[in-house]
Amino acid sequence: MIDKAIEKYAILITKAIDTYLPIDYPEGLYEASRHLVEAGGKRLRPTMFLLAADAAGGKIETLVSAALSIELIHNFTLIHDDIMDNAELRRGKKSVHMIWGTSEAILVGDTLYSKAFQTLGMTQVEASRLITAMNILSRTATSICEGQWMDLEFEDRDDVSEKEYMTMIEKKTGVLYGASASMGATLSGASEEFVRGLDEFGRFTGMGFQIHDDVLDLTSTTSALGKRRGGDLIEGKKTLIMIHAKKHGLKLSAFGKKDATQQELEENLGLLQNGGSIDYARERAEMLVKRGKRALDILPDTQAKTLMLDLADYMIYRKY
Amino acid sequence: MIDKAIEKYAILITKAIDTYLPIDYPEGLYEASRHLVEAGGKRLRPTMFLLAADAAGGKIETLVSAALSIELIHNFTLIHDDIMDNAELRRGKKSVHMIWGTSEAILVGDTLYSKAFQTLGMTQVEASRLITAMNILSRTATSICEGQWMDLEFEDRDDVSEKEYMTMIEKKTGVLYGASASMGATLSGASEEFVRGLDEFGRFTGMGFQIHDDVLDLTSTTSALGKRRGGDLIEGKKTLIMIHAKKHGLKLSAFGKKDATQQELEENLGLLQNGGSIDYARERAEMLVKRGKRALDILPDTQAKTLMLDLADYMIYRKY
Repeated sequence: MIDKAIEKYAILITKAIDTYLPIDYPEGLYEASRHLVEAGGKRLRPTMFLLAADAAGGKIETLVSAALSIELIHNFTLIHDDIMDNAELRRGKKSVHMIWGTSEAILVGDTLYSKAFQTLGMTQVEASRLITAMNILSRTATSICEGQWMDLEFEDRDDVSEKEYMTMIEKKTGVLYGASASMGATLSGASEEFVRGLDEFGRFTGMGFQIHDDVLDLTSTTSALGKRRGGDLIEGKKTLIMIHAKKHGLKLSAFGKKDATQQELEENLGLLQNGGSIDYARERAEMLVKRGKRALDILPDTQAKTLMLDLADYMIYRKY
Repeated sequence: MIDKAIEKYAILITKAIDTYLPIDYPEGLYEASRHLVEAGGKRLRPTMFLLAADAAGGKIETLVSAALSIELIHNFTLIHDDIMDNAELRRGKKSVHMIWGTSEAILVGDTLYSKAFQTLGMTQVEASRLITAMNILSRTATSICEGQWMDLEFEDRDDVSEKEYMTMIEKKTGVLYGASASMGATLSGASEEFVRGLDEFGRFTGMGFQIHDDVLDLTSTTSALGKRRGGDLIEGKKTLIMIHAKKHGLKLSAFGKKDATQQELEENLGLLQNGGSIDYARERAEMLVKRGKRALDILPDTQAKTLMLDLADYMIYRKY
């Protein structure tokens, strides 16, 4: 059921890209700007946005531009993050800075950033609702920057706590899911209580999503991930899995070792599995999703609500 | 007179920074974000914004946050531009990426970007006016990216025309001055015709400002500029001066030569002066400012209008 819904909304978003991100002048900038946006991804954030709008009785057709604005913000952050991480692949394609260069990739991210606000601004809804949505979006973008700054700081630290990690992923990933759900609701005229509940739903399931992403980075395949498997490990990222492993004295030879061999990676993965670090992360992700789902208790039972609950599960049971 | 006004508005803006850009968590991000913003600059864009608001009968006190949003956008573009240009100095201080690193400087720019929209969103005015202002700001930010992309493209080209250069500086510099004036007016409830006139005023004087900036880059001093004199020349920037020089067959040995000596720079400057390239740029700047000032004909004669006309002259007669 949820697969069908995701597919349906993804088609709406892909169509909207042509309308709201046309190839303008200078063409090179817009071609580069569409490279990653068109490469797809699952469009889970706009899907959550549109389901929340549906649950709040909003008109989906008039809100596609606003849902796209979330996807554009997401893509801008990926492009800038890939520069910072020297990441070569994203969604199975070369990253923007690998093709066009770093300066150009900075600009492409900046362009998607303002296009997100332009696109949101074109949404045909009551002015006061639109202001609220714009304020959510700008606050969220700041929060993402704060989370990414923490992530960068973690690179030089050996004592990152689980609590700090949780704050980091809340800012870096949670709030954008929170914004997706709460903007969808607020633009549909939902009550404050309703909007708060949806923000909580998005934020906690988004954190679960991020932890599951960390798990997939180790347990999935390079082709399914669209980027190198084990990337976080060899980059020395302080994920929840690594924080758990360190606390339990696991010796991971590939940690922070960019030229680690495939065999080393497999051995490290075995250690993490036997040491319980991966199961621990899985459990935490499940708890967060449970907490997020509970926040939907205030909603009346509708098909949209059922789909949102399914989406929450999908976020941590997906294979890639 | 205009000096006093600039000083007065600069103080308002500097105060507003404490309110709207507080040192939040993570502290490092906010310290880095305030580095350039606090270094000052002349605050000409918010000055133009507040004069336009005054001319339109707006309440200055309620619009300081909106004026600051323009300054934050300006600072974000400087920080990202300095990364792209490998610029070491800005406003007499080390550039953000030189102190904190490139990844961090990307994030600092991104943070100021969203803070600009947050700050604008806090402005206490009628919702429909605020939406219009937000739409101007996002459209303008996109345009700046387009201009900067063109500027990057020019680096690899030998055949940049004067017309292309004009389009580039209109996007990169002109539109933000246009936004300053038109946002100030629109938030004060001015008519569409009034707002259009102010946009034109800002856009053309802003282009004059940019050409004058190119002139100062060659004719001022490193200490007055707060960055290395002749930087554009040795970086091989295709400014109007260089386009004129090329057209008239001047041979500039320091062009694009990063290790050019001081003597070489002086000799090149002499060539540009004798060849008429600098005078040509000065004349073009004057013409643009004249055209911008003419757009204010629709305004009633007020003290604010007189100051705006003075500001336009200041933009191309300032010494640094």
